[in-house]
Amino acid sequence: MQTLVIYDIANDRVRGRMADACKDYGLQRIQWSAFMGDLNHNRREELSQRLRSLLGEEDGCVQVFPLCDKDMRLRFEASTPGYRRRLELGRERFKFV
Amino acid sequence: MQTLVIYDIANDRVRGRMADACKDYGLQRIQWSAFMGDLNHNRREELSQRLRSLLGEEDGCVQVFPLCDKDMRLRFEASTPGYRRRLELGRERFKFV
Repeated sequence: MQTLVIYDIANDRVRGRMADACKDYGLQRIQWSAFMGDLNHNRREELSQRLRSLLGEEDGCVQVFPLCDKDMRLRFEASTPGYRRRLELGRERFKFV
Repeated sequence: MQTLVIYDIANDRVRGRMADACKDYGLQRIQWSAFMGDLNHNRREELSQRLRSLLGEEDGCVQVFPLCDKDMRLRFEASTPGYRRRLELGRERFKFV
């Protein structure tokens, strides 16, 4: 089932590790702090626990949503070409202060 | 149906307007750039078009996901008390540079 991960974490290092974990599970970046991809129930549970462990006591939040086919068909997106291009290049344009 | 809105927008003013639009539609902030709440199909469509219009040519991305009851039951969240407290207070701790 498609799985959406969104997170908001102040610590650059922890945020980077969250992204790496999502990539390890085959998810694709859809926003700077949001990933999506196909995971079965067990893999989704595994990833959720790994993300919880990575967060630890760090300041932040991570949420994981399974998305059924019907929900996926009804999703909406608007984005600008420049944003999509940079997302593909993997170049972050902001940092936390 | 529960609806999740996530966005990533560089321009502070536009980002603020996105948040205001989500609040106008009764959504609650679940991360600094993520809102959730109950919307019927028409309201979800309306909000999506409003968000698209607010984004305009600005650099960024906004995505809207309907979440059925089953998907909602299977969602996962990990967050720290300090983060949740600040979210309730509505105080942003970062800005785009």
